[in-house]
Amino acid sequence: MSRGKAVVLLSGGIDSSTTLAAAGADGYELYAISFDYGQRHRLELESAGKIALAVGVQKHLVMSVDLALIGGSALTDQIAVPKNRSLDTIGSDIPITYVPARNTIFLSLALAWAEVAGARHILIGANAVDYSGYPDCRPEFIYAFESMANLATRRGVAGEGIEIRAPLMELTKAEIIRRGLELGLDYAMTFSCYDPTDDGLSCGECDSCRLRHRGFLDAEIADPTKYAVTPRV
Amino acid sequence: MSRGKAVVLLSGGIDSSTTLAAAGADGYELYAISFDYGQRHRLELESAGKIALAVGVQKHLVMSVDLALIGGSALTDQIAVPKNRSLDTIGSDIPITYVPARNTIFLSLALAWAEVAGARHILIGANAVDYSGYPDCRPEFIYAFESMANLATRRGVAGEGIEIRAPLMELTKAEIIRRGLELGLDYAMTFSCYDPTDDGLSCGECDSCRLRHRGFLDAEIADPTKYAVTPRV
Repeated sequence: MSRGKAVVLLSGGIDSSTTLAAAGADGYELYAISFDYGQRHRLELESAGKIALAVGVQKHLVMSVDLALIGGSALTDQIAVPKNRSLDTIGSDIPITYVPARNTIFLSLALAWAEVAGARHILIGANAVDYSGYPDCRPEFIYAFESMANLATRRGVAGEGIEIRAPLMELTKAEIIRRGLELGLDYAMTFSCYDPTDDGLSCGECDSCRLRHRGFLDAEIADPTKYAVTPRV
Repeated sequence: MSRGKAVVLLSGGIDSSTTLAAAGADGYELYAISFDYGQRHRLELESAGKIALAVGVQKHLVMSVDLALIGGSALTDQIAVPKNRSLDTIGSDIPITYVPARNTIFLSLALAWAEVAGARHILIGANAVDYSGYPDCRPEFIYAFESMANLATRRGVAGEGIEIRAPLMELTKAEIIRRGLELGLDYAMTFSCYDPTDDGLSCGECDSCRLRHRGFLDAEIADPTKYAVTPRV
């Protein structure tokens, strides 16, 4: 039985792909949305397309919004991606890979689509356990966005409600990976690296590669990722 | 003396242009942001450029974000713009010219720029008196967005704060026009029509033209706008 429509933010990484697959298993009609936002590479958008196809979505919308015009992040500007930072540091500060207001912007565009498509739910793979310390990945941000969204929209005014869900918020990366494997997700299709090689290998040295690899190790699952350098964890 | 940097949403209409001019007079360093969002015409972007130049901004950023991909509005989709609606109706419902989540999206992008530029203030010309009844023009929306923004950003986490201001919120259109004229604003440069003619004339029949014209009449100021049809008010 359908649980109705859900707009799902899909970057093509582990968290958003697992969120999408889990929402499909839960019976949502899936509207996946991805963003070509001036990030350093297109490999994650290719991954998003593969995952959307594999999971089986109603629609997959790729929107362009050139955040490189604004810059201020190692992911959208001429700033080096930090490599092999102390693992203790990860999550305790806001690193330069933070893209200013990215989740706010992406959720806003998802909100517009939810309003037009008639979707009550917007799902985001934000996670506050094995994460990079971004302010817009915390539960208090998600709640505040939901409150705002219900005042911003026709659905909200009509009392039909918009719910923003981050179902992976409290899970470790290992728990997320185990959940995805139960759902039949092929993580070889996903892509996490901030700064891949020209050959499309994951660098193995950025926070995202290292958190990913540590997740597979913790889950005691073979990591299918092709790294240029085996991540230090 | 500078009051610091302010990011100002600038559509090129009366309200946003007046907000920009007033912020300049108040001593803010102005960062104007406009959006090419798949609206029906480019005339408002031309107006925004003229106004930014006339008022004197530090930077004017025009960002593209194709809301026509999402549609659902007479301003971005193949839906007719309503003409000569009952004036009693204007403001009492949410008309089809409402662009889903538009102010949320625009404020989110302004928030990203504020974060990178180091601006504490974001100014929007939202108005809840002589307006079209859009949910994202109400004060409760603005407050909720501000709360969310302070959780979403590095500035917010650092306690430096983001303030979202809608200085025209409680003014009538006539009061806004009088304020702009005091500031030396040339309203002939501004553009409000939702559905101009191919010759670039304002239609005179959409809500926006009629609210604009009524504002000039109420202010007892000659309306410099070139209409195809004199608006009924």
